[in-house]
Amino acid sequence: MNKKTSGLAWAALCSALLAMAALPKAQGEQPIQPIVPATQVNIGMAELGKKLYFDPRLSRSGIISCNTCHNLSTGGTDNLRTSIGHNGRQGPLNAPTVLNASLNFVQFWDGHATDLAEQASYPIANPGEMAFTHTLALNALQAIPAYRREFKLVFDQDRIEINHVTMAIAEFEKTLSTPNSRFDQWLLGKKDALSAFELSGYRLFRESGCIGCHNGAALGGNSFQRMGIRQPYKSTSPSEGRIDITGRPSDRFSFKVPMLRNVELTYPYFHDGAVGTLPEAVDLMGRLQLGRKFTDDENARIVAFLRTLTGDQPRITLPILPPSAGVKQRP
Amino acid sequence: MNKKTSGLAWAALCSALLAMAALPKAQGEQPIQPIVPATQVNIGMAELGKKLYFDPRLSRSGIISCNTCHNLSTGGTDNLRTSIGHNGRQGPLNAPTVLNASLNFVQFWDGHATDLAEQASYPIANPGEMAFTHTLALNALQAIPAYRREFKLVFDQDRIEINHVTMAIAEFEKTLSTPNSRFDQWLLGKKDALSAFELSGYRLFRESGCIGCHNGAALGGNSFQRMGIRQPYKSTSPSEGRIDITGRPSDRFSFKVPMLRNVELTYPYFHDGAVGTLPEAVDLMGRLQLGRKFTDDENARIVAFLRTLTGDQPRITLPILPPSAGVKQRP
Repeated sequence: MNKKTSGLAWAALCSALLAMAALPKAQGEQPIQPIVPATQVNIGMAELGKKLYFDPRLSRSGIISCNTCHNLSTGGTDNLRTSIGHNGRQGPLNAPTVLNASLNFVQFWDGHATDLAEQASYPIANPGEMAFTHTLALNALQAIPAYRREFKLVFDQDRIEINHVTMAIAEFEKTLSTPNSRFDQWLLGKKDALSAFELSGYRLFRESGCIGCHNGAALGGNSFQRMGIRQPYKSTSPSEGRIDITGRPSDRFSFKVPMLRNVELTYPYFHDGAVGTLPEAVDLMGRLQLGRKFTDDENARIVAFLRTLTGDQPRITLPILPPSAGVKQRP
Repeated sequence: MNKKTSGLAWAALCSALLAMAALPKAQGEQPIQPIVPATQVNIGMAELGKKLYFDPRLSRSGIISCNTCHNLSTGGTDNLRTSIGHNGRQGPLNAPTVLNASLNFVQFWDGHATDLAEQASYPIANPGEMAFTHTLALNALQAIPAYRREFKLVFDQDRIEINHVTMAIAEFEKTLSTPNSRFDQWLLGKKDALSAFELSGYRLFRESGCIGCHNGAALGGNSFQRMGIRQPYKSTSPSEGRIDITGRPSDRFSFKVPMLRNVELTYPYFHDGAVGTLPEAVDLMGRLQLGRKFTDDENARIVAFLRTLTGDQPRITLPILPPSAGVKQRP
């Protein structure tokens, strides 16, 4: 990265930049911009939300927290094909990363939540995930004196409500941005932040059309697209995507385009997690979505570019959770 | 705590101190001394061990780490009656806290591991816990380039061995001490660190004989004792304790005496986790082990003393785990 850029590399870089400038934008394409850390954070609410995010008492078993599937040690996901919930039950979908998730235009693969707070309300009560109920979760929190005080401080209300729980979790999640990737450094003017090889991958990413869907600050997360445009995709997941929400036949196999930020950490890929590596994922996307078979060299360039999208991971101090008073065995 | 100690309280305190000085020591009783943070830590090994401690890839499911049952957000334990492992399977025993665990003379309730490193080797391969095998866990680590480098750096060997994994975890666990409890501040000379009420609880703790087993720096963790000396204990756990290791009939229902450090955080109590609150635990211990029914006032004093044993909880920065290369679905 700090290697002196040779004359040859400079030439390649300049030619790449010229090519990019000349590229017409795809319809609806948003500019790729650097990740910006959240600027308006309610610190008290986010600190409370961080506790809740790590608190396994929001689950029936008492061992599953938000962080179990959206693990902040591993790219904000669990790196499993599809997630494992209550009593080892395997779900139908791959866990999307929580990193930069506030940049998604809707939440979940099929977009059934409009924002992070709404998203947070689902896993608590999903029998295949945390398998609790909102009522039992609230009872558990209400029985913890320090939580009662902290909710009172943040929301100025004696009774804890589920929308306060999810608002606090969402406020914490807003802080989970990953700025300062090498690609962002390059966008911000550090011209040696990317190698000529990586830059050529970016050029190919644009020219070949990947950017038609993977655009905006998060390189994705801002549209639904059908999985398998040029070739049908045989999924290992029973989910048919957006059609489950809209009922529209045209939405069959339509999923939210995943963000590519930190993509080297968020394997395996796609809504079914069927693909374990970036080269395989790039190859499949080329064939299925673009009708293009990337050569090994092209594939390697795009993958090299994608690896420059890994930003600074949030540095999280593990919260110390307030003890329950008079604990009994879980229901 | 910072309230000015009144003359009356001083009188009570002095009388308590005099009584303590006069108390004969129980047989084998070790002095209670402040918790001292580890002084000889191999930082590189402990940092590696921290990663491994939080790494769910040491489990078959890919979602259970050491921190699942020995959660550093909740007193180094899971606050469950008995722990939940692979596929939601509930185990036979309450998870002992990892905090100050290096002070235990042996590990596990029945003492079947001599030290922390040996302890760490068991849950990985226990079908009811992480349900992996040492071979599969090593394969998983060996497939992660950054781990290979870090193990090489720390252990100067190309091949990762299970005893290196467990040594590293143990080295991290050595750092999980909780100094600076109010009781330790008092032991170190801050005479207003405890209230007269709390001090009277300490006096009662000594006079009534609790200290006969709960002594040493950790107030326990240094002997086996039979559960139910004066009255038989009807346990909800199938475990018969130390006899499973020694085969000696006299070891039936003999368990390692748990440490009382941070005891207000490590509920529920006893090897079967059958008791949820400190007042219940103190009452039961009095009747079962000492043949003494504490009055409500005595019980409250002892409990007040026990709550002064909560030390500074370790401040853990969540490790960022190295990504796997070419991930496949778990076996």
